[in-house]
Order: sequence, then C-alpha cells, then structure tokens
Amino acid sequence: MQTVKQRVQALRAKMREHGVHAYLIPSADPHQSEYVPPCWQRRPWISGFTGSMGDVLVTLNDAGLWVDGRYFLQADAELKGSGIRVFRMGQPGVPSLPEFLEKNLVKGQVLGIDPQTLSIRRSREIELALKAAGTGFVSLSKNLVDAIWMDRGELPSDEVMALPTRFAGESVASKLARVRKEMKARKVDAHFISALDGVAWLLNLRGRDVPFNPVLISYVLVTANSAVLFIDPRKVPAAVGRTLGNSVELRAYGDVAAALQELGREKKRVWVEDTSVSRWAADLLSGADLVTDLSPVTLMKSRKNDVEVQGMRAAHLRDGAAMCRFLCWLENTIGTTKVTEISAADRLEEFRRTGEHFQGLSFRTISGYADHGAIIHYSVTPETDVPMRAAGLYLIDSGGQYLDGTTDITRTVLLGKKATAEQKDRFTRVLQGHIRLGRVRFPQGVTGGRLDVLARAALWSVGLDYNHGTGHGVGSFLNVHEGPRTISANKDTGLPIEAGNIFSNEPGYYKPGGYGIRIENLVLVKQNGVTGENGLPYLEFETLTVCPIDTRLVEPKLLEAEERAWLNAYHKDVYRKLAPQLDAKERGWLKRACQGI
Amino acid sequence: MQTVKQRVQALRAKMREHGVHAYLIPSADPHQSEYVPPCWQRRPWISGFTGSMGDVLVTLNDAGLWVDGRYFLQADAELKGSGIRVFRMGQPGVPSLPEFLEKNLVKGQVLGIDPQTLSIRRSREIELALKAAGTGFVSLSKNLVDAIWMDRGELPSDEVMALPTRFAGESVASKLARVRKEMKARKVDAHFISALDGVAWLLNLRGRDVPFNPVLISYVLVTANSAVLFIDPRKVPAAVGRTLGNSVELRAYGDVAAALQELGREKKRVWVEDTSVSRWAADLLSGADLVTDLSPVTLMKSRKNDVEVQGMRAAHLRDGAAMCRFLCWLENTIGTTKVTEISAADRLEEFRRTGEHFQGLSFRTISGYADHGAIIHYSVTPETDVPMRAAGLYLIDSGGQYLDGTTDITRTVLLGKKATAEQKDRFTRVLQGHIRLGRVRFPQGVTGGRLDVLARAALWSVGLDYNHGTGHGVGSFLNVHEGPRTISANKDTGLPIEAGNIFSNEPGYYKPGGYGIRIENLVLVKQNGVTGENGLPYLEFETLTVCPIDTRLVEPKLLEAEERAWLNAYHKDVYRKLAPQLDAKERGWLKRACQGI
Repeated sequence: MQTVKQRVQALRAKMREHGVHAYLIPSADPHQSEYVPPCWQRRPWISGFTGSMGDVLVTLNDAGLWVDGRYFLQADAELKGSGIRVFRMGQPGVPSLPEFLEKNLVKGQVLGIDPQTLSIRRSREIELALKAAGTGFVSLSKNLVDAIWMDRGELPSDEVMALPTRFAGESVASKLARVRKEMKARKVDAHFISALDGVAWLLNLRGRDVPFNPVLISYVLVTANSAVLFIDPRKVPAAVGRTLGNSVELRAYGDVAAALQELGREKKRVWVEDTSVSRWAADLLSGADLVTDLSPVTLMKSRKNDVEVQGMRAAHLRDGAAMCRFLCWLENTIGTTKVTEISAADRLEEFRRTGEHFQGLSFRTISGYADHGAIIHYSVTPETDVPMRAAGLYLIDSGGQYLDGTTDITRTVLLGKKATAEQKDRFTRVLQGHIRLGRVRFPQGVTGGRLDVLARAALWSVGLDYNHGTGHGVGSFLNVHEGPRTISANKDTGLPIEAGNIFSNEPGYYKPGGYGIRIENLVLVKQNGVTGENGLPYLEFETLTVCPIDTRLVEPKLLEAEERAWLNAYHKDVYRKLAPQLDAKERGWLKRACQGI
Repeated sequence: MQTVKQRVQALRAKMREHGVHAYLIPSADPHQSEYVPPCWQRRPWISGFTGSMGDVLVTLNDAGLWVDGRYFLQADAELKGSGIRVFRMGQPGVPSLPEFLEKNLVKGQVLGIDPQTLSIRRSREIELALKAAGTGFVSLSKNLVDAIWMDRGELPSDEVMALPTRFAGESVASKLARVRKEMKARKVDAHFISALDGVAWLLNLRGRDVPFNPVLISYVLVTANSAVLFIDPRKVPAAVGRTLGNSVELRAYGDVAAALQELGREKKRVWVEDTSVSRWAADLLSGADLVTDLSPVTLMKSRKNDVEVQGMRAAHLRDGAAMCRFLCWLENTIGTTKVTEISAADRLEEFRRTGEHFQGLSFRTISGYADHGAIIHYSVTPETDVPMRAAGLYLIDSGGQYLDGTTDITRTVLLGKKATAEQKDRFTRVLQGHIRLGRVRFPQGVTGGRLDVLARAALWSVGLDYNHGTGHGVGSFLNVHEGPRTISANKDTGLPIEAGNIFSNEPGYYKPGGYGIRIENLVLVKQNGVTGENGLPYLEFETLTVCPIDTRLVEPKLLEAEERAWLNAYHKDVYRKLAPQLDAKERGWLKRACQGI
C-alpha cells in the first residue's frame, strides 16, 4: 500500500506529463455531492483526510488541504507526516485557496482541473483569481488522480426504489408540472438537474449509491414536454420503470454529454444551477444561453409538504425512542461492562434498526469520549477508539434514514457522577443558545444568518464561541445536509426562511484536549398565526427531536426564567411522547431524565 | 409659485426636447451626499418630498417616489395630490426602481440621467436592469431640473475652518501618509475622494456648506507626492491656507474635470470608491484603470482615535445636560404654558447652544407628539405643528455638532400621568432590544447586520417590528450618518465591526395614528480585554449618551433580571455624570428620573 507521500509524488509525475504546475482535488464528484461513492473519493485517497469537506491542492513542490473549523483538529491529526499542509479557512492570516493560487502560481504557469469536480460558480471564482495573477487553468479530460489510482472501484450499480406518494406527499407528475411552470416563467427551453438529491426528490426515487445519502447517480433533463433520466439502465428495475411511466424517458448515464452538446448547438436557453452543475456540463453546453440561478427543485424540495412533515414527526418519535434506549443502556453499562466509542455507536445503530421504516444511518455517527468530543466531526476508527470510563463527558451526534424522514441529533451526556463547574457553565451556555434560537419568532423575510447570533451570544459574553455554523437544512428521507439555506452568518445565501423548512439547531463548545459539548435538535419552520403590519406572516420553530437533554450538566442559576420554563416544558413533552414506546426499566430512566429543574 | 404638478409637466417638456422617456432625480448631489446644499435639492423641489432619502422617477405619463420605511407616512402626506406615486421600498409586491424601469421602458426608449447624481455603483445597477430590458440610459450634460428651476440659488461660498489637532487627534500629514501607504499597497497612482466628509476628515477642515453636516463642497486628489484640494478659492481664508501649507495644493472646484480627464488620458491606475464617486467622474476618467473598492479614508475615518473618543465622551456630557434641562423644563411646562412641537424643539436647541464648543444641530430635530411620533422621520412644519397636552407620548430625536464630537439621541417621554398597558408593553420591548444590543459582546469579525436581531427579537415575539435599521455610524464633528457600517441586516456591507467605531442603537415601535416610541443612545466599540481562541479580541459597546430613559413607561415584569440591572446601573451613571452640571431644581428632577426600578 502506497503512502500519501508516494501518491502525491506519483501525481506530480502526471502533472509534469500534462504540463500543469498545480492540480486541484476537490471533495466533490460530477454532481457536486458532499458524500461521494468510493470510486470518486479521490481527495481522501490522495491525502488521507477523511472529513466530508476539504480541497487538496498539489503543486510541484508544495501541497495543502483547505478545511473549515469543523475539521481543524482532525486534519492536523490525519495529515501528520504526509507533507500536506493544513490551511485553516477563515482564520486570520490564512490565505484562501484562490488567494494561495494567486500568490504561488507565476505568469505562464497553469492550474490543472478536472472540470467535473468543480461547480460552475467555483470554477469561475478560481478563474477570476488566476486571471488577476496573469495565469489560468486547463481542463484535463482525464482525472489525474484516477490515472495513478490502480485499484479504484467501479461506479455502484445498486437498484433504485420508487418512493410511494404516501411518503413523498406529491406525485412526480405534480412536481414536474410545478417545475415546468417555473421554467416557463423564466423562458427556458430546458432545465438540467445534476444534484443527486434534486433528481431523487423530483422523480420520487431513492438509491444506495452513496453512503448515508439515499440517492442515485444520475442526471435529469426537463423540457416542456419531456423528462429524461440519465442513469445506468441496470439500476432501474422494471417495476420502477413502470412507476415512472411515459412521463420519464430513461437513457444511459453516459449519454448526458451528447444531450448537453446538442442543447448548446441548438443555442437553447438552459437553466443550470451554478452551485450544483459542473463546469464540465457548462462547457458541453457551449453555445447555449445559460440561466444559472438556484433550481426551482432546490427551493421546492426545501419546503416540506404536509405528508413529509407528518413523516418527519413520526420518524422522530421512533428515533427518540432509540436514543432513549441507548442512553439508558449506556448509563447502566458504563463502569460495569466495557464500552468503547465504536461499540457504543454500534449499539445505538442496533436500537435504531428496530424502528419501523429504518433504512440506515443518515451520516457516520460521531461518537466522541472526553477529548475526542472536542474534535467537531470526530470520526472514530479502530486506531482512535477508546474505552469509556464512568467519568467526563460523552458526545454522540447521529441520525437515521427512515422511509418517512431523516433525523439528526446530538446529545452530550455526563458519564461520571459529577460535572465540573466549568463543564456546567459551558453546557448551560450552549443550551441557552439552543433555547434562544429555538424560541425565536420572526417575520417572513428573515434569513438564517440573521438568527445565528441568538445561539452564540451566551458563549460570546464570556469570550467563547464554536467554529461551525449553527444549523443546516435537512432533507426528507434525503440528504442530512440539504441546501439552500443555513443558519450560519458566513454561508447565508440571502434566501428568507420559509414555512416547511427544516433546520438543525446545534450550537456547541469545544475545549481541545478536554471535552466537547453540542446540543442538537431538528426544528420545523411554521407560521405562528400572527400577521405583521406588512401583511406577511410570522414564523416560529417547532422542535422535531424528542430526547432528553442531560440536566445534570445544567447550572440552573445561569438560565433565565423563560429558558428554564422551555427546558421543563420540553422534557414534559418528551416524556409524554416516548414513555408509551419504552419498557418499564427504560421508562424509569426517562422519568428521571425528564424531571423538571 | 408653481405646483409640483406644473413642475413635473415642465420637466416632461424638457424630457421630450432631449428625447428621453424617463428622467431620474435622485436625492444625491455630485458628492453623493445625504444632506445637500439648497441649490442641489432638486428632488424636494420637483416633488415636494422633503425627507433625507428618496428617488423620483418621472416618465412621460407617470411619476414615482421610491422611499424606505422611515418615510412611508411622510411621503404619503407630502405627495398627496401631486400625481407622484409612492413606492414603498422592500414591501411585498412593490417593484424596485430598476424593476420598474425594466417593466415600463420598452425597447428603444431611454432613461435620461445626470451622471453627477449617481454613484458609479448605482449607475451600473441601473445600466444592467435597463440592458436586461433591451433599453439604456443617456447621460445628459445639463440637469433637466436645473433647466426649469428658475430661482435656483448659487453654490454656497462660506469660509471653511481648520480643525485643530487637539480636536482631530491626528495631523493632515499623518493622515496623508497612511492613505499613501494603502495606495502603494494597491499599486494605484492616484486616489480621488469625492465624499465631502472624507475630504473634511482627511484635511482636518470643516465647513458650513450643507445643513447639519459640517462639510465643504470640494474634491481631493491624492498621489504619491501631491494632494490637490479642488474648492472655490473664496472659501479658503489665508490662515487656513497657511495651515494646509505646502502639502496641499489648492485649485478651483471646476478644475477637477480636466484633472480627471488627464488621469484617464495617461491611463493611470486610480482609486475611486464606487459608492461615493459619481458616474460623471468615472466617465471623465475614461482610459484609466479604476480600482473601485472602499476608500481607505472611509475606513480610517470610522475608527475614532483616542482624542476623538475623549471628545465624543465630553460632548455627550454637555449634550446630556442640555437634554436633562429640556426634559425638566418640559415636565414643568406642559399643561401650564403652551408648548408646541416646534417651540419644544427650539427650546432644546437653546439649551444645547449654551454648551461649550456647540456648532449647531447635527440634523433637523424630530419633535413628534402623539401620532406624529409614529412618522419615523417626522419633520415638523408650521402647518403640521400642534400644541402638546399633558397626555400621551412625545418622541424627540435630536443631536448637536460640537467641535469635539457629534451627538444623536432619541427619548420618548410620557406627558400624561399614566401610560396605557399597551404603551408600556411596547416601550419595554423597545427598551429590551436596546439593552440586549447594548450589552452584547462579540468576537472581532462580526458584522453589524448579525447583531440586528438582538434589538428586534422582543418585538418580534409578539408580531411587532420597526421599519428602519437599528443603528448607523456617526462621525466625529462630522456627518451624523457615517459609513461604511450599519447595524442593519439589509444594509450590511460585510465589513466587521472594529474598535473605535461609533454607532447609534435605536430600536423603535410605531403605531400609525397612535404614537411612536424610539430609544436611541450612541455607543462606542471597544475591546473588552478578552481574547478568543483564534487570537482575535472580543469587543463590546460603551454607551456614550448620558440621559435618563423614562422609567414610567417601563413594565418591570417584562424585563429579565439582567436587563433591569443594566437600566438601574445606567441611571446611576447618568446621575453621577450629569448632576454636577445642573442647578438644584434640575438636579431634583434628575434624581427622580434616575431612581432605580
């Protein structure tokens, strides 16, 4: 097995062969996915960094990984000795990737890219930065990592399933009609959809091609009177084909290139969302008039319909029961039988697996004991796994995919008898942030970035913060990270929050080498019945997640009266909803866990 | 005297003469000022709307005024019967000016503009919108309003004064050196400054050309070894010329056009801030390589130095004493002697006038009794003036210019014996917003827009809001509205708040036809001694404004314990600082006003 150093050297040889002075290996695949199938996991292969986001740039004599705050510690650990430097994005004095390129490529040198791995928007940003420096990039038709990756696998060929309308809440015909209405309003001839969750949502299909995200590798091209699904035909069972009927035509995955070129030749007006469609597709469309705005599919998908909302609530009841069984088991096992980070995560998965409609996890469980909890996206491996003792804090961030919904929950629990004053102070401030954001009411028109401060102010007041966003969108039996909105100041897309959106609410605090705290519930946006003076409705969050928050870690004196009332009301509700699903022993545990403070 | 209708008709005749189908009359002057000298007040003249911001568009058969939320009620009142429609910016279904142009100009029709009255940025926005609609604009060398405005005045020719370094805190030489350092870093040959407060700050000059803003009509052109002030030479007394010395060359105001053309001809690289430099200047610079980023002067001016900070604190002590004398006088006079909105404002000005270093008001006093208080930027006239009774609420928003600082304060006071429960509820929620924003601590890197929600959440929680920003920057014996930062989600420029910035903190609530509430203090940004994990300092606000807040309007039950503590501590501080400046009667009033709740 090659080392990372050897792989990077082999890549440099290929770079010289192709006359490029730098080569970019982003996380993304041709669909700009966050989670990608193994054969497209080039960035982890070349660098050894396994986080879900991060770009590697290799030059002839240097190499760097750009990661955000969630991955600073993990990147340091995983890249040790690799010769690849970690660039901590957003930290003072750290150049962004475009800035680094601007400084390190001299006139006449070029960056090599695989245009399938960059969105239209990102490729343009990089193009601009390089232009400013008097350099440029070349699109290489073959991926240079693929050229040196000998045992790279094949594209997955698992069968896809049709999601019945009783889970999806809307027929494919209805969704296509709504998309075509938007297309007509924008006067486009075609809409090309490359985002895998967009395809899955639009055609009520689900797949197993990517870990954790129930998507299928495919593209869709919609026109006024046709919808073509480009997909490996082996993946579509006859029954699914029948379900799609005459309204959706199937063509081979590889045929998409010719279809795009034809639209370009015919100078059609084509809608391609510039954050999810690749530069490769845009180049093939050369000659077409491109509309690069957000896809209507992205927006429609983010507004959950009534069936999806009911499904989400139901899935959360099952998921909450699994979490309770797990927490009860953990409390009774720690200190008597050996439990490690991995065995705990496995046990939780077993509890989830018994739930109706369970399809798998919605992301790799973050199971972090003590100082591992401070690694924001800690991914436990057999090498890092540790036994957990009856002392300190344990952070578990996990979720399930159910036919009727997707869950994502983080709880931080005390394993010892007593928390330190510092731990209680930090936990209570994180909880305050969680409650203040959860309780806010706001007029329609407000973006998520404007609310972010509510989750941070209690930490800020004592000079503390967390280096990640406060919330992300969540799909409905789809991706656990779903665009286009976030509750994050830096990633605010300017899109107002709307009724039907689902977000995570997950402030945290991380003490490197010490412990990590995060409290995460999913929340549903809904109207609260009040209308503002301008006639627009007011919105509020309904908490979907049903699971106790460890009150042994709360310092009641720090809470405002209304915050304490929120916590007690939440626990009353949790008990009422979960008790009927639990056995006597678990119910006893739940009763104690839900006691008022 | 012509009516507005007659003026608009006369303008349309001129428009036909010049072959334009629409004509834009923005508020701005060639320096993109908010307050403009009378001879450049074309928009008020053509429309009758006297607010500080608002753009008029006249087409051959329609006319509209675009105003923001502060001016909705005032615009309705002032434009009644004028034939000019009010477009409420930001309200659902109301087209923006570019959207209106896109829809209402058909192919082949053109918009006429005076390129002096549009910034580079705005002109480009309008250009894009028109291009999308297949139309365009023509720059007319003569302003069409000027062509029909017979009794238009001359440009002011008042003398300017040099602001001693003991008030400015930094010499002109030092400021020029810092600007040149930034110019060198950006590799520009010249920096052209058109913003009047920028010129005044850079050259430590103050003038009387514009109501309320102590600026001088002029431009500055800085190169590596020269600085040219373009100004009517009659305005510069010999002593001021001597103070400027050899480092600043004086040239006639009108010479600026030739100077810009020369830079263009020589293909120089020129820094022109695109929000404050006019399209006219950019066109003259044709041929030059333009850097359009924020001017270093704009940024430096916004970071008050120690002398300016001390001056601001001192000016606020004097200003607070004037406010107290006024509020004491008002309480003792209302119900016994006739007081009107105008006479009250005049009385307050008299109290201010006795303060050391007083130079005039910093803006037209907003003196609004009862329902007039609900007009956010109410500008009382002899026609609207009303006597005030010993009942209801009174809102007064006012400020002074002092040699050592600029003030801006709003207080809402109860004139009757008892407030209604609704008034107390609203007042307390506004106060909560004011306190929550005032108490926040935050890491360096945070923008003002992110903090805005803190001032609104208490109102939002019951479906209420205010239709204006929460805070604006304030100059140091300069413009009371100073860029580039605001505490406003919609106008967030993305620039992090920095130590030395001064903002207003002014949430409000307005009940049309009922009453208005606003509580405004100025706050100074400073480090609080805490350093975050990323090495950047934490910041907090120091309250500069010293004047009691009417506790008779507070509902204590609504306040959190810490909010009540803030209010009591503030009043203790106000009493300590102001009592020594007041006579026995006023001191007695202050003592009662500052009592704890």
